[in-house]
Amino acid sequence: MHNETTTDRIPVAILGATGAVGQRLVSLLFNHPWFEPMALCASERSAGKPYGQATRWILADPMPEAAAAMTVRSSAPFAEPKIVFSALEADIAFEIEEDWARNGHLVVSNARSHRMREDVPLVIPELNADHLALVRRQPYPNGGAIVTNPNCSTIGLVLALAPLERAFGLKAVNVVTMQAASGAGYPGVPFMDLIDNVVPFIPGEEEKLETEPLKILGSLTSDGTRVEKATFGVSAACHRVAVSDGHMEAVSVSFEKPADKAAIMRAWIDFEADTEGLNLPSAPAKPVLYSDAPDRPQPRFDRNAGHGMSATIGRLRPCSILGWKFELLSHNTVRGAAGGTILLAELCVAKGLVNGAVAPARSVVKEIQSIIEPQLEMA
Amino acid sequence: MHNETTTDRIPVAILGATGAVGQRLVSLLFNHPWFEPMALCASERSAGKPYGQATRWILADPMPEAAAAMTVRSSAPFAEPKIVFSALEADIAFEIEEDWARNGHLVVSNARSHRMREDVPLVIPELNADHLALVRRQPYPNGGAIVTNPNCSTIGLVLALAPLERAFGLKAVNVVTMQAASGAGYPGVPFMDLIDNVVPFIPGEEEKLETEPLKILGSLTSDGTRVEKATFGVSAACHRVAVSDGHMEAVSVSFEKPADKAAIMRAWIDFEADTEGLNLPSAPAKPVLYSDAPDRPQPRFDRNAGHGMSATIGRLRPCSILGWKFELLSHNTVRGAAGGTILLAELCVAKGLVNGAVAPARSVVKEIQSIIEPQLEMA
Amino acid sequence: MHNETTTDRIPVAILGATGAVGQRLVSLLFNHPWFEPMALCASERSAGKPYGQATRWILADPMPEAAAAMTVRSSAPFAEPKIVFSALEADIAFEIEEDWARNGHLVVSNARSHRMREDVPLVIPELNADHLALVRRQPYPNGGAIVTNPNCSTIGLVLALAPLERAFGLKAVNVVTMQAASGAGYPGVPFMDLIDNVVPFIPGEEEKLETEPLKILGSLTSDGTRVEKATFGVSAACHRVAVSDGHMEAVSVSFEKPADKAAIMRAWIDFEADTEGLNLPSAPAKPVLYSDAPDRPQPRFDRNAGHGMSATIGRLRPCSILGWKFELLSHNTVRGAAGGTILLAELCVAKGLVNGAVAPARSVVKEIQSIIEPQLEMA
Amino acid sequence: MHNETTTDRIPVAILGATGAVGQRLVSLLFNHPWFEPMALCASERSAGKPYGQATRWILADPMPEAAAAMTVRSSAPFAEPKIVFSALEADIAFEIEEDWARNGHLVVSNARSHRMREDVPLVIPELNADHLALVRRQPYPNGGAIVTNPNCSTIGLVLALAPLERAFGLKAVNVVTMQAASGAGYPGVPFMDLIDNVVPFIPGEEEKLETEPLKILGSLTSDGTRVEKATFGVSAACHRVAVSDGHMEAVSVSFEKPADKAAIMRAWIDFEADTEGLNLPSAPAKPVLYSDAPDRPQPRFDRNAGHGMSATIGRLRPCSILGWKFELLSHNTVRGAAGGTILLAELCVAKGLVNGAVAPARSVVKEIQSIIEPQLEMA
Repeated sequence: MHNETTTDRIPVAILGATGAVGQRLVSLLFNHPWFEPMALCASERSAGKPYGQATRWILADPMPEAAAAMTVRSSAPFAEPKIVFSALEADIAFEIEEDWARNGHLVVSNARSHRMREDVPLVIPELNADHLALVRRQPYPNGGAIVTNPNCSTIGLVLALAPLERAFGLKAVNVVTMQAASGAGYPGVPFMDLIDNVVPFIPGEEEKLETEPLKILGSLTSDGTRVEKATFGVSAACHRVAVSDGHMEAVSVSFEKPADKAAIMRAWIDFEADTEGLNLPSAPAKPVLYSDAPDRPQPRFDRNAGHGMSATIGRLRPCSILGWKFELLSHNTVRGAAGGTILLAELCVAKGLVNGAVAPARSVVKEIQSIIEPQLEMA
Repeated sequence: MHNETTTDRIPVAILGATGAVGQRLVSLLFNHPWFEPMALCASERSAGKPYGQATRWILADPMPEAAAAMTVRSSAPFAEPKIVFSALEADIAFEIEEDWARNGHLVVSNARSHRMREDVPLVIPELNADHLALVRRQPYPNGGAIVTNPNCSTIGLVLALAPLERAFGLKAVNVVTMQAASGAGYPGVPFMDLIDNVVPFIPGEEEKLETEPLKILGSLTSDGTRVEKATFGVSAACHRVAVSDGHMEAVSVSFEKPADKAAIMRAWIDFEADTEGLNLPSAPAKPVLYSDAPDRPQPRFDRNAGHGMSATIGRLRPCSILGWKFELLSHNTVRGAAGGTILLAELCVAKGLVNGAVAPARSVVKEIQSIIEPQLEMA
Repeated sequence: MHNETTTDRIPVAILGATGAVGQRLVSLLFNHPWFEPMALCASERSAGKPYGQATRWILADPMPEAAAAMTVRSSAPFAEPKIVFSALEADIAFEIEEDWARNGHLVVSNARSHRMREDVPLVIPELNADHLALVRRQPYPNGGAIVTNPNCSTIGLVLALAPLERAFGLKAVNVVTMQAASGAGYPGVPFMDLIDNVVPFIPGEEEKLETEPLKILGSLTSDGTRVEKATFGVSAACHRVAVSDGHMEAVSVSFEKPADKAAIMRAWIDFEADTEGLNLPSAPAKPVLYSDAPDRPQPRFDRNAGHGMSATIGRLRPCSILGWKFELLSHNTVRGAAGGTILLAELCVAKGLVNGAVAPARSVVKEIQSIIEPQLEMA
Repeated sequence: MHNETTTDRIPVAILGATGAVGQRLVSLLFNHPWFEPMALCASERSAGKPYGQATRWILADPMPEAAAAMTVRSSAPFAEPKIVFSALEADIAFEIEEDWARNGHLVVSNARSHRMREDVPLVIPELNADHLALVRRQPYPNGGAIVTNPNCSTIGLVLALAPLERAFGLKAVNVVTMQAASGAGYPGVPFMDLIDNVVPFIPGEEEKLETEPLKILGSLTSDGTRVEKATFGVSAACHRVAVSDGHMEAVSVSFEKPADKAAIMRAWIDFEADTEGLNLPSAPAKPVLYSDAPDRPQPRFDRNAGHGMSATIGRLRPCSILGWKFELLSHNTVRGAAGGTILLAELCVAKGLVNGAVAPARSVVKEIQSIIEPQLEMA
């Protein structure tokens, strides 16, 4: 445990703190070397109660004692938090997040509500950190801004695609997902729907997978005011399978330029993340890993790779239709939700988007790994 | 129970009778209106024991008493059976099946060993019954012949593709499977490999899915001696999921001719099976069904459609890469193995391939349904 | 399908018709030889809509077309139904069921609300049909009455215990359950709670298991006005396991009189059900079956025994603490809920509790089996 | 990673190193602060191959590189190893383990073969360390000895019972288990046997649970040559459930002396382990933990408690038959197999049973926790 005094850390609030993603944020942020949670916000029904009472805790690691004792607040903005993490449901996120931004806060959101707005960056820190420039176009005063984390199944896919896009240019991407139940939150999918079964439909999911990658892999115009979307085609078919955590995706791709297996592997292995050199505590050593085993990646064995922050790729092989195909896995509630959102907030700090907050020196970076790891045991 | 005397029915033998597919054959054939099992054959280890002792029975319906009392024989040919059902493992099937054919028997095989031979028909009875003509090229004397049933994941796929091939011409097919554990036989997949997991690899499966459809949907030359393989491309990615029975497949297709949703639906609904009018007892009313529900088909709810002999299709929708995509389900151990093999044997009888055997009249046809149905409860 | 005209059948209503047990009732009653569903009742939110729209149908067999077209009614009593099946939640069942009884209807309830009332029979038709006499003590006019079906885990247990109580006298019963998810209704248990897990607690379940058996196995006083509860001790520990349907129970028992294995087996096998000779369409041939296999019963293989209406017992063996122990399985949504409730209603008809309704002759009895069976495929 | 030179550590061999328990031993011992694996032994079929080739590795943490490169040896004894860990199958363990003992080695065995021998200690280090004295009765020369680790379901049970036996005296114990699939090794239980199912039988398991606790909780005679077995009754019913790791047990107990809830809780909490003060690296802070939550322990959430070495108890409540009942969970492959065996070897070192080996000083003890923990992520 670190010994920094509280005042060294950046005060943050968590919206939707009692939900599934909110709990994961609580769990990670109460042990975070940079951030100091000072408010846990939830619906009016929970407001006023101690967090420990208001929450049906569903993680394996115990609720942080400091969190349990905090009184839950409503979601209305107040002055202190410099960063507001949003794990709100999409239906209410739109307005509440704007409220905070209008009050001068940086909102880092896992909700889909603002993702596709032209002036809102949709960011995977390793891939398109430059898109953060879009916040300058946002209408909020006093440094208020909204930045967004992509959908859980999008993040894994785009982590694998970005090196290929840079190296060979993408023409078409076909992706068939086999997604974990935790992606639906809690209580989420009924046991009776998924035992001995596959459900070939997740509302809204195929649409997100077919649009978000084009924005993330789009190019910031030279004046930094707009993202020119990428133009390759994406076709997605989404399935829910009997898995707790870890989204599998069967991906096939066609390229603009010729590619062979060695070159593709090299693209993944040599990929230089935008986050390199920034010493962000939640950044994995490698955003994508490649497994040589004939039958990997697999959710139960690979989801925790890179402390749950790395996507694992395997089985790269020719595809007689599109050219190449491979299998992909990433942890949907760590990289795909809470962990990804925190990494994005770290990036915002490093890029100077948080009023008066400075990224800590390198010395604390390593510490985060011993914090994240135990939490993954049951992730 | 029917009252035909034994002599009315066609004597048959079952090879590999103690295995998973063999047991399903035993279960179905001991109640079959046309066939009379007279020999259960297995390895030397089992030969000489009563079938009831030699077999670890894994079906929910009880072992037929007549089967339990039979003494298991070795797999060496003997005169009486007119049809020999083979549920042998591929590594030993090649020679044993030839042995029987050389001795003048019709071998109806579920093994892959002879499937791709130029002179061996690979048949889905509703789709390419005419390919049976190939047996005339086979070198076996006295009416001996080998006919083969496709791989379990191939059958569902081709049932869905055949109407589209006829109506619009196929250019390319991309298929991603989510296959049930029973496809690996028994004991098959260890529980520890599949709980909370997906395994993105099934040895040899992608190769079968990429080649068998081209033979099945190929054209018999006018002299009936050769099948001109179809030439569309097929790319397959195969996964094992935590499901007992029922293979899901996410399929996308491109056509030679323009097609709209209504036309595609009509192609499936209006499809005329080669088996129509033949009154084969195991033929389902419709080889493919279409579900309008937004989240179907699903293994647990749709695998028993058509007594396990119909494939169910759902979610037909445009694909931005290939044109159209849909979801598909079929029962891998009924339609995909034992049931499909029996239907193929029935077709052979109807087509006169079995020396001295004649297809029974219509009156017994309905009876089979009350026999198959209870077996599906736990299929 | 039978050809009786509608007027031959007894008009019935279903309360809570859109829920999990309600749907199973709809499915069974729209094909029942004695009963004619004329009203499907649900909450005000659903009332006024067609049943097909108001209901998220979760059974594998399709919704009966006649049901789909019916307009859902509120739960307020109206004249026509002679029998009212209640699948209401316990919190609202108490008052609504009384309302119907006060209006002269026979309420056959699956809810726990009235089960332990002194003047309400808690009945397993094969075991304590005589307890129906209690209804004469009920305060309802015009033949109104409430009869109740026990809890799903109670029914299997008491089916196994009753023959032992009669033969040897019970002193103590220890039962540890492993219960299926469907017992919690729909949506019921979240997938995330039960994958790779066991939950050692089901609210209120141990209390029901420790009290209901004593009432069911109690003796009706000679004047028929009271049930003297049985006095043996019951201790229960209840667990939810990753199973769809079928409650397993590990039971150990001590007896008043000496017993050996043969005598215990004989008690089960020779048990004479109170329903014998009554030709109730839903009564199984044998309420309890015994499996000789060393590893049975098992939910996936035995839950559908006797069309889901028989409990299966296995592994009877000495217990060094209580004397004897065995394993037990019964289908919790068929025998334990909808099927058991319908059997109880049939018993009420046969016993003359339904004004002006007469039990049909034997000829229709067999018919029900072909109706129940297909529904069990996915039960 | 520690910096001790190799010569500081005690040379050990692993028998059955390619199996499921053997792999876990390899994984833990190649990072152990006291032990230095110098030989990995397996069947003749594997001998001569590099361990990395001979082994189908099934753990989530990668195979230690030093292990992968080692050449597998046969199981025949050779001089160097001071301790031999045996993960052999029971059928071959008897003779091979004796061979090593006769050659002067200390065999620490997870196999059941020698467990019930009068001169072989069956030890849970926290509970009956004094039983190690029995080895002096063994006939092996040069310090050769065999000590044994109990069955996986026994260990959890006895960890919970021992404090109760000391405080109140046990009269009777009824235990119903719900055991994880990993207890059957690999490949172990077929997926088709356990999906949507419970199997109420594990060969030999009930016998072990009914006998081993009496030996472990027995008293060493004052001359240290014999263990007087405990005499309370144990009745066990064992089930396999659809869980990967973690055995649940529903336990009821009767005592010699009166006990109330507070006293029972105190017995568990205040329990003084025999290992206290010995600084054994694998010893958990508390061998038993108590959870106050109404629905715990649960395998998915509690199996890793105390790095997989603590049993978790919950739901202590009165039992109308035996007096008290509770729920119990322990990790069957860590505490119940490899971890327990290693802890036992550590105890033997501390007690001076290993020729010329001395227990390291306290400073290295803490180190082990950072080693064990990452391995539990997928345990």
